[in-house]
Amino acid sequence: MKTDIEIAQEAEMLHIKDVAAQYGITEDDLELYGKYKAKLSNEFCQAAEKNESGKLVLMTAINPTPAGEGKTTTSIGLGDALTKLGKKTLLALREPSLGPCFGIKGGAAGGGYAQVVPMEDLNLHFTGDFHAITSANNLLAALLDNHIQQGNALNIDTRQIVWKRCMDMNDRALRNIVVGLGAKADGFVREDHFVITVASEIMAILCLATDMDDLKERLGRIIVAYNYNGDPVTAKDLQAVGAMAALLKDAIKPNLVQTLEHTGAFVHGGPFANIAHGCNSVKATKTALKLADIVITEAGFGADLGAEKFMDIKCRMADLKPDAVVLVATVRALKYNGGVDKANLSEENLDALKKGICNLEKHIENLQKFGVPIVVTLNSFVTDTEAEYEFIKNFCEERGCEFALSEVWAKGGEGGKALAEKVLKTLEEKESNFKPLYPDEMPLKDKIKTIATEIYGADDVTYAPAANRMLAKLTDLGFGNLPVCIAKTQYSFSDDQKKLGRPTGFNINVRDVYVNAGAGFVVVITGAIMTMPGLPKVPAANNIDIDKNGKITGLF
Amino acid sequence: MKTDIEIAQEAEMLHIKDVAAQYGITEDDLELYGKYKAKLSNEFCQAAEKNESGKLVLMTAINPTPAGEGKTTTSIGLGDALTKLGKKTLLALREPSLGPCFGIKGGAAGGGYAQVVPMEDLNLHFTGDFHAITSANNLLAALLDNHIQQGNALNIDTRQIVWKRCMDMNDRALRNIVVGLGAKADGFVREDHFVITVASEIMAILCLATDMDDLKERLGRIIVAYNYNGDPVTAKDLQAVGAMAALLKDAIKPNLVQTLEHTGAFVHGGPFANIAHGCNSVKATKTALKLADIVITEAGFGADLGAEKFMDIKCRMADLKPDAVVLVATVRALKYNGGVDKANLSEENLDALKKGICNLEKHIENLQKFGVPIVVTLNSFVTDTEAEYEFIKNFCEERGCEFALSEVWAKGGEGGKALAEKVLKTLEEKESNFKPLYPDEMPLKDKIKTIATEIYGADDVTYAPAANRMLAKLTDLGFGNLPVCIAKTQYSFSDDQKKLGRPTGFNINVRDVYVNAGAGFVVVITGAIMTMPGLPKVPAANNIDIDKNGKITGLF
Repeated sequence: MKTDIEIAQEAEMLHIKDVAAQYGITEDDLELYGKYKAKLSNEFCQAAEKNESGKLVLMTAINPTPAGEGKTTTSIGLGDALTKLGKKTLLALREPSLGPCFGIKGGAAGGGYAQVVPMEDLNLHFTGDFHAITSANNLLAALLDNHIQQGNALNIDTRQIVWKRCMDMNDRALRNIVVGLGAKADGFVREDHFVITVASEIMAILCLATDMDDLKERLGRIIVAYNYNGDPVTAKDLQAVGAMAALLKDAIKPNLVQTLEHTGAFVHGGPFANIAHGCNSVKATKTALKLADIVITEAGFGADLGAEKFMDIKCRMADLKPDAVVLVATVRALKYNGGVDKANLSEENLDALKKGICNLEKHIENLQKFGVPIVVTLNSFVTDTEAEYEFIKNFCEERGCEFALSEVWAKGGEGGKALAEKVLKTLEEKESNFKPLYPDEMPLKDKIKTIATEIYGADDVTYAPAANRMLAKLTDLGFGNLPVCIAKTQYSFSDDQKKLGRPTGFNINVRDVYVNAGAGFVVVITGAIMTMPGLPKVPAANNIDIDKNGKITGLF
Repeated sequence: MKTDIEIAQEAEMLHIKDVAAQYGITEDDLELYGKYKAKLSNEFCQAAEKNESGKLVLMTAINPTPAGEGKTTTSIGLGDALTKLGKKTLLALREPSLGPCFGIKGGAAGGGYAQVVPMEDLNLHFTGDFHAITSANNLLAALLDNHIQQGNALNIDTRQIVWKRCMDMNDRALRNIVVGLGAKADGFVREDHFVITVASEIMAILCLATDMDDLKERLGRIIVAYNYNGDPVTAKDLQAVGAMAALLKDAIKPNLVQTLEHTGAFVHGGPFANIAHGCNSVKATKTALKLADIVITEAGFGADLGAEKFMDIKCRMADLKPDAVVLVATVRALKYNGGVDKANLSEENLDALKKGICNLEKHIENLQKFGVPIVVTLNSFVTDTEAEYEFIKNFCEERGCEFALSEVWAKGGEGGKALAEKVLKTLEEKESNFKPLYPDEMPLKDKIKTIATEIYGADDVTYAPAANRMLAKLTDLGFGNLPVCIAKTQYSFSDDQKKLGRPTGFNINVRDVYVNAGAGFVVVITGAIMTMPGLPKVPAANNIDIDKNGKITGLF
């Protein structure tokens, strides 16, 4: 079997202007980045707003396991299959982060014969969006420390600075640092932290902003610190907004690339799915809807985190209405949820499957609460058996969901036709009655409890004293109407990553709370959430190389 | 008078493919970044190597003063004037850094009617080269700390780590930091430092590398630390080379933009001129020479730093031979060197001019030591008088230099015709007998003394004990044959920035020495050299804004 990068490098890509032309985008509407990447001009995006909207399909998954689910791969293969069936289809996906690319995870542009290309560029810098976000984030930090250095007219309490620097790198040594050492000219000493760029609030803001004015409004609302009176100090107070927005002038424009089979893919933005909402940009999704019959988008992690935030944060804010959800599972992951060790997942085991399928069941029930029709798909693997497929198919159909196998990793769009047909059937025959889980005006604690009990299956929510105080303060400050964004382990419905399947009889324990006033949600921290990953014993970086002709190897 | 950005925004730019066509570059040879920026493909640069080379003109200046000299502006105006005179001309300039753009200095793309455009893009991200350098620099740092975290098989002495992280930002709080705080998983605690990206050795390496293989060789030689035996630990030892090179795959390709009058400009790379060599990339300069009759390039700061390093480092390594040097001065700067306060520079003052012209005189003498013919130009200012011009003209002609006024700031290429004619006359009539100042095999201390006495006019060189030890160690390690790169204040020939004019009777005091083994020079530190600037009381960032149509204001 060829590696992903080998398959990607053998692809005969179309010039991106030819990909664009399939969707009525002219060369003049594009800002090219080489021959195979482009941004859409602001003028084009604005003009497209008057078009009819296509159908929106969300790709989500069961809780991730070490066995892997393949959400992005399935999205891409489904897109290619719909194209094969004559539907004008666009993908709206997240951009990969540079950090994991050099760590343990590798790149993120699909896999096998369902990839977006050029794979190397997507994983290395792409069109520079993440670098622009890093720059805007760190300009704000520099302006903040400079404000204190120059007299601190805003009376910022250096013990209550909440803005962190960021870098698009897995670098554990920067998690906890002390800055400002040296002499008088070198600043005030204080504790600081770097997060990875995808965890920056600016990433979430860029992905939720509808246009430049909205972007600036949101940037201005960012709370960077509290002053000695306990009042918030914002980016606007630091007069940082215009310069930050100028740094983001191109980053706000959606990027267009193609799949191996030349379906168009808007790959734009990529916030974390724990401390942020985990979806590609609103601007890309909305523009795609104006250009295609069907748009496939994805949300991070499992449906408990990704789909819930897609519905309750992205769709709520952007007035989007998903028409269907595709829920990805694998036989191996369901058996893993049923208690089988990673080493033994290749053997047929119907008992374990029957036990582990409760994870899928709970996700189905959850997604039904949002009123959106569901198609379940299994990302097939060579060791799967017919009996296993049959069992899962019946299980889904009994619950009112369409079901299809997906073989896109091995076969590309051809392997996604069965799934595409079920998706089309669902879009034609079933109505979406989408509604978010809770209303804006519900108090923050009730929102948290609603998600914890309805989606996670918890009995109750407990709060650390600091979290309680902060919830009261944020409500006082007028943030009570914001949606909540719960940061929780992705591996379990509960906040304990070891509880697989469909755990019951547990509480969600809230450790900390803060507001992303610019993004427009209240972040609720359960457990230890990592916002700056580290590198493993043998980093992927060690095996990456480039030859004298610019050909890259070892990226995966 | 219009601001620079207003003039730039009113410019009718050509599509960059039309600019390229003037030099025989086809659209297929370009990697477009929007309509007005492009990179040249590796294939094109390689194919161009067989062409004849044009003439190389270096733009340099007297020591900078608060009055300003306008080296980049003069380069651009000269380029436009040569184009007007029918010469196929290309510029080979440095890329601006993002940091100063938000600080006190503003952008760097020329000024008035002698600018390269698009000005906003040049100053904000451009084609992402500096971000790629930042990423490669910080990947190496992350791999280094990770190596220690994972067992430190290379026996790295954490007290002797010399690799620093970097950021393209003016951020004084990051000058001196402590990293690795927290728990066991968060790394080892150690002191660290951020430098601004242009001060990263990778910037110097990118600018000196002739191709991808050379780039990788140089990256591999970077010394990141010393082990407990005192031996160097390199980037190659950390297996970091391939991934770093992959991050630099596009950054190594020259960028093409245009002047306001559509002369082509290769704007590529921009290392510091104190701790590095201060010139644009070898690859851009060499490629430009293969495409144009005349190439104008520039070096950082005054000729004592910039031109000396251009000759002794860049030309030596890249086998380049400058055909002429243009030395920029202003009446105001010469009067400032003659002791006039900044407030009184607008009045005619021939006595001060006669006193201050010794600065110009010493630069002329120095440049003559390299065997290259000189044209002196005055960047004109409205308060200058005829008598002042006449005096300077005679002074230069008595010393065998051509002389011309430059009015390019106010008049663009038309204002540079007099200078262009003198440059053409020099290229036609005078032969360049270029030679570097010292041979490779001269011992390091003799090289330092040669530059200090011959160029700076010092009596002698003194060494701090640590510098002495390091020079001995570097010679033992086999670095004795490298050129030296002296980091010194740009404001004086001496290492005391207050000594203007042509100081005598001083020593150069060497505080510290280290090797940039990848770039291939030994850095010699005199005085306090700032490698991470800070922001001023009122940062330029406060006045930058962007409207809903993407139009930027306040950038200068």
